[in-house]
Amino acid sequence: MNATRLDESTVTRTALVTPGMCGPNSLFAGQLGDWTWETVTALCDVNAFDARNEDGSPTYLSFYYFRIKAGRDMHVNGLTFGDRLDVTSRLFGFGSESILALHKVSPVGGGALAVEPEEFYRFDDPKAVYVENFNRWITRSAPGSNEGLVKSSPVGFRHDHLPRLPDAYSPRRVYNHARSRLTFLDAVPPDRERLSVDYRVDASRDLNGVGLLYFASYFSITDWALLQLWRERGRSTESYLRRVVLDQQLCYLGNADADAVLRIDVDAWGSPGDELFNVVIKNHGRTIAVSTLHVVSTGGSHDGA
Amino acid sequence: MNATRLDESTVTRTALVTPGMCGPNSLFAGQLGDWTWETVTALCDVNAFDARNEDGSPTYLSFYYFRIKAGRDMHVNGLTFGDRLDVTSRLFGFGSESILALHKVSPVGGGALAVEPEEFYRFDDPKAVYVENFNRWITRSAPGSNEGLVKSSPVGFRHDHLPRLPDAYSPRRVYNHARSRLTFLDAVPPDRERLSVDYRVDASRDLNGVGLLYFASYFSITDWALLQLWRERGRSTESYLRRVVLDQQLCYLGNADADAVLRIDVDAWGSPGDELFNVVIKNHGRTIAVSTLHVVSTGGSHDGA
Repeated sequence: MNATRLDESTVTRTALVTPGMCGPNSLFAGQLGDWTWETVTALCDVNAFDARNEDGSPTYLSFYYFRIKAGRDMHVNGLTFGDRLDVTSRLFGFGSESILALHKVSPVGGGALAVEPEEFYRFDDPKAVYVENFNRWITRSAPGSNEGLVKSSPVGFRHDHLPRLPDAYSPRRVYNHARSRLTFLDAVPPDRERLSVDYRVDASRDLNGVGLLYFASYFSITDWALLQLWRERGRSTESYLRRVVLDQQLCYLGNADADAVLRIDVDAWGSPGDELFNVVIKNHGRTIAVSTLHVVSTGGSHDGA
Repeated sequence: MNATRLDESTVTRTALVTPGMCGPNSLFAGQLGDWTWETVTALCDVNAFDARNEDGSPTYLSFYYFRIKAGRDMHVNGLTFGDRLDVTSRLFGFGSESILALHKVSPVGGGALAVEPEEFYRFDDPKAVYVENFNRWITRSAPGSNEGLVKSSPVGFRHDHLPRLPDAYSPRRVYNHARSRLTFLDAVPPDRERLSVDYRVDASRDLNGVGLLYFASYFSITDWALLQLWRERGRSTESYLRRVVLDQQLCYLGNADADAVLRIDVDAWGSPGDELFNVVIKNHGRTIAVSTLHVVSTGGSHDGA
């Protein structure tokens, strides 16, 4: 816990990028989730890592919506060992059952430490990664099962002191759209290509420390589906690894047990070097995640190869 | 970096277990590697996260041998959100090209913070996880390739001040045995069962922030191979998830590129509830890792099912 409190809704920290939090994998997404929990723990009178509801059951601050907005010069896959980051995190109140964290991630010394919605949602600092992370408190409704999770606020969670987010930026509007349309795109372009693949939830990699499908695994599974698309099109793994994700939105709608076979539909538009992808993940026919990505290449000579 | 220096070879820190560093996956192993690098950075006048050799090329403190020794009451898969740990890390000198880190991981307040080899190698505190991590400085011999990595010490690496490990505990003896015999076992018991499986290095999960096969992925790949053995024997995923790894030794002998198809041979002895496994991972016929594990069950009613 290195976070320094800036005001009643904001903390900031300097982070050294370690092997355990970067690479072409979901480790940085996992780190973002930890920063959300750390921020809530610092500012909301509840230990997000060990929270319990009135029944004494564990309750988890579970992601419902994630957006990671980046630039060609500063993006998740571009982070490497030894990079030093300023990470400023601000919380916004959404009642007792939900909370929004905004994280602004910049190279050390690269920018202002405050997070103001009007500035944040312009996404106009090319040296920043902007992260929206909307979370809900949930608990299991049946022991040992990862399906049928229900909302459940922890004892002592303080949120009245947090600022309200201006309606114009409401994540609810955004994720409700994704939930009903199965995409974050306002309009689906013509000429899509589709790949459908099955993925079996892997007991050796995909679960977290309480046995739920780890939120960062939704990023891994999405990335794995894109890799299958790369292969199917005969594109190089090298170009896959050099891709730049300028924007990823991901809405969580359900969890899954180990060994569940997920059906993943990937729609793609554009051409190598500038593409949109829409990914829908289903478990037993029920949609458990929707993600939309904007992916460009780094412009190297082998792109699209 | 929360580590506090205890003496010229030792640091200690208190760690809160987050979702990003626990679970039935390799996240805790990854955290152990980060602690090794953090300790070297704190005590050896070199930034292990951004080290360079005399040619100006990046050099990485790469694991060569790992041992994680645990107990039924305190083991890696048993860690969960919110646990608080004391982690004491001590370095031992092995010249300019290698270094040994010993980590003792205990529940907060659970034990002495010093690490003395005579005490450490007794492995007799049932509330501690004992970690040996022998590392070598390596660099790429060809840009973009993960094969043919060579030893390469960074500029400024100070190690003369570190204590020497008594010969009786030398990891060299141990890993040389594993390298020549392809097991850490002194004698291979009779009546082994063998499973051979292929694993393709996954560009969406297995690489680290500099494009090498991430050291923690060797743990993941080993765990994946065990899961295949569980399946082949018709044993439940639930019993797989509840396994307790009392001892794992892992020796690294080579890296691999994305898409490489690794051949994994798993030998097993014993019966559900108390088993030895030996895992040999090969790339193009060359052994790149050897691991030996002692795995027991938690004693639940479904074990061995």
